[in-house]
Amino acid sequence: VSSNAIGIGMIGCGTVGGGVAKLLHEQAALYAQRLGRPVDLRRVLVRDVAKACAGGLVQKDKLTADADAFFSTADMPIIVEVAGGRGVVSTYVRRALEAGKHVVTANKAMLAAEGPELFALARKHKVAIAFEASVAGGIPVITAMQFGLMANRIDALYGILNGTCNYILTEMTREGKSYATALAEAQAKGYAEADPTLDVSGKDAAQKLAVLASLAFGVSVNESDVWNEGIDSLDLADIRFAAELGYDIKLLAIAERTHRSEFGVPSSESGRDLPDSQLATRNSELGTSALSLRVHPSFIHASAPLAQVRGSFNALSVYGHAVGHTMSYGRGAGQMPTASAVVSDILNVASGWYPLACQAMHLLSDRQSRVQTVAANDLVSRFYIRMTALDVPGVMARVSDILGQSGISLSAILQHEANVGQFVPLVIVTHKARQGALLDALDQIEQLEVIDGKPVCIRIVDMPAE
Amino acid sequence: VSSNAIGIGMIGCGTVGGGVAKLLHEQAALYAQRLGRPVDLRRVLVRDVAKACAGGLVQKDKLTADADAFFSTADMPIIVEVAGGRGVVSTYVRRALEAGKHVVTANKAMLAAEGPELFALARKHKVAIAFEASVAGGIPVITAMQFGLMANRIDALYGILNGTCNYILTEMTREGKSYATALAEAQAKGYAEADPTLDVSGKDAAQKLAVLASLAFGVSVNESDVWNEGIDSLDLADIRFAAELGYDIKLLAIAERTHRSEFGVPSSESGRDLPDSQLATRNSELGTSALSLRVHPSFIHASAPLAQVRGSFNALSVYGHAVGHTMSYGRGAGQMPTASAVVSDILNVASGWYPLACQAMHLLSDRQSRVQTVAANDLVSRFYIRMTALDVPGVMARVSDILGQSGISLSAILQHEANVGQFVPLVIVTHKARQGALLDALDQIEQLEVIDGKPVCIRIVDMPAE
Repeated sequence: VSSNAIGIGMIGCGTVGGGVAKLLHEQAALYAQRLGRPVDLRRVLVRDVAKACAGGLVQKDKLTADADAFFSTADMPIIVEVAGGRGVVSTYVRRALEAGKHVVTANKAMLAAEGPELFALARKHKVAIAFEASVAGGIPVITAMQFGLMANRIDALYGILNGTCNYILTEMTREGKSYATALAEAQAKGYAEADPTLDVSGKDAAQKLAVLASLAFGVSVNESDVWNEGIDSLDLADIRFAAELGYDIKLLAIAERTHRSEFGVPSSESGRDLPDSQLATRNSELGTSALSLRVHPSFIHASAPLAQVRGSFNALSVYGHAVGHTMSYGRGAGQMPTASAVVSDILNVASGWYPLACQAMHLLSDRQSRVQTVAANDLVSRFYIRMTALDVPGVMARVSDILGQSGISLSAILQHEANVGQFVPLVIVTHKARQGALLDALDQIEQLEVIDGKPVCIRIVDMPAE
Repeated sequence: VSSNAIGIGMIGCGTVGGGVAKLLHEQAALYAQRLGRPVDLRRVLVRDVAKACAGGLVQKDKLTADADAFFSTADMPIIVEVAGGRGVVSTYVRRALEAGKHVVTANKAMLAAEGPELFALARKHKVAIAFEASVAGGIPVITAMQFGLMANRIDALYGILNGTCNYILTEMTREGKSYATALAEAQAKGYAEADPTLDVSGKDAAQKLAVLASLAFGVSVNESDVWNEGIDSLDLADIRFAAELGYDIKLLAIAERTHRSEFGVPSSESGRDLPDSQLATRNSELGTSALSLRVHPSFIHASAPLAQVRGSFNALSVYGHAVGHTMSYGRGAGQMPTASAVVSDILNVASGWYPLACQAMHLLSDRQSRVQTVAANDLVSRFYIRMTALDVPGVMARVSDILGQSGISLSAILQHEANVGQFVPLVIVTHKARQGALLDALDQIEQLEVIDGKPVCIRIVDMPAE
């Protein structure tokens, strides 16, 4: 190893860590050329040295399970954290920052919960945290947001940020598989974990949205600020009706700047803890607008760019006030795509420019005020509703009467022919309505004896014109 | 203006310059917040002060037509060049660099012809050239290539880089308009210039590809290294046959790393001026591969992500060895999208990180060896061929005999029924063939008395699996 090599320590050596080791090994010459000096993986901290999986790419004597030995390794100014999770991993990251080491991390869960504290700690110790790999795998969405789109006031983000869910939805849509069949297949192919809850509940996408929205809107966003609903209760019937109406169903992660006038009940339900005047001052970038932050199954027009994103791919649509619509597309997970983002971060930190950028520009959430969110029930949207109704005269009149009394008007109704007296699906598309009002109306509709079970309600997302 | 403001000089104040002035004016508070200091547009150099079009956003006393007065303005460390073209503009850029000023430019023509010299001049004077706006308007493709995908050995780029051509092709495909009608419409809507040659000839896309390929492959690429063919001779018949065969026609800008074994005649036709051994050493990143650099109408599968790019939008597909396929999509031209890229560059340069990155990382073409290209005739591709043939027995036998003797085999034939003795279109799809061999065979076919006119030949581009 040349004397001017830059030393890297790595925490974790599972799938992503193995990919990082592989890249640093196989592309050593290319990286040395681009950086003007070699990168040297000096030490790897693992839970169990015997079980560490690096595909033989990390020499045994570099592996250690001893955190003190790891952190006392000399000439190791960059720590790569690819262990995932919080708890002890988070204490390691703090220890690294406190020791004046830059951190490269793929850990969305940690950033979505502790981002502001960690960025503040990094700033205090004059080091940087690079986190491109925490969202959308290898697609450089963080780099684009932090630097490439810097001139824009961002108005909205719409992302397909969970490849497992997109794979399942694609199979349901294109192959007519049930949710359970598509999930089992995703598990067999390694796209879904044995316990798929984090993915299918929308929680994984919510963590990623928190990281993205903090950067995009210049506010501090925690995972708990994102309202989320998963795909686990989606019925194949809804996928089919979506197609019939000209839509696709995607699990979208959405952050939209929304002006107060668009919302019904602005204050008490929205969870804000400060008087408006104080927030408006603190929240200088957002001004008088608040953010709608949510992850949920969404009807989107079959011709929309995001509807073309199939299988395990990810994509992020960003609407900037100057650039208009831009979209990034690619593999949001997997060993080598994620390692691509981690190693790109390593090179950008090692060259010195990324730490300078973090210091010089006011981008990170430790310097931002808390986000002001709009409560889910205050969301104004078009809705798709499917209920199971007894096919007798007067049902539609009673349903539309309840909706009408809540100020909700209909734009489309779908009811296929059946024998009178049978239960049949009744599908309704509404004009724009406040979610709270709609859910109240659906509660009343559910009580009707001619309606069987709970009506299904899915938001229709009309993205801005390109 | 606050005393710590960073001063900007701008050369040119047309459409893009007006957009830059508008952003700097309207978003002054946002930029000051992100940068920690305000940006101050101090002076604007124009050809004619009376005619300068800045929509009233530049105070009259800041405009000057006097280059000496412009360059002697104090406290103006960043020069923005949005005049376009070469000649005197290029001398202004050199003058700025020699005076130790950073340059932000949208000028693809200048970079595609003089990039290595300009980057070397910048390095000599310890300043940076930022050029995000030179390719794909507001889409941050340069930032992604320089930083976000840094860990990748790039294997291929496929871009829709000219919005005018994509608009015309979309109208021909979706509305069945002729090339002339679609062009006239593009001109009426302001998507095409009165003289559309630069766009429709493929030359504009070739300049952009030269800039991108230099960065992506770590070699010096000149516009003249890119082989190009425009859309101006495309016939509606080919658009229709493409659809019938399951393809769309797009004007693609392509840079592919191609291993020598894939090519027929490696040396004399490929325009290389050095023995292989020397090139292999100098061209360390490319190793034993060369680049195929070309812009031409292309058949792509109707389901490919790039086929979904419609109207005046641009997109760039990048295939990296680790990340796989990533695609960026958005507006590739227009006042505000281009201004978005220019002002993002201004902020990144002003913060100091971009100049450090250029200095620390070996990315720019002044440090790279000349590209080693593959001659167009050595390209191995599948081809679509359309000829007008007399519908008499034996025609297909004579055509396929000529192709067979050149080692070209057919994968599909399309011939619609007609009356015997009439001229009808005969469409052939080939398996992979060397372009030189195919063109020779088509010359022979053209000589047949049963063939009317010159056969049309369009490349089928099979992008790598995602």
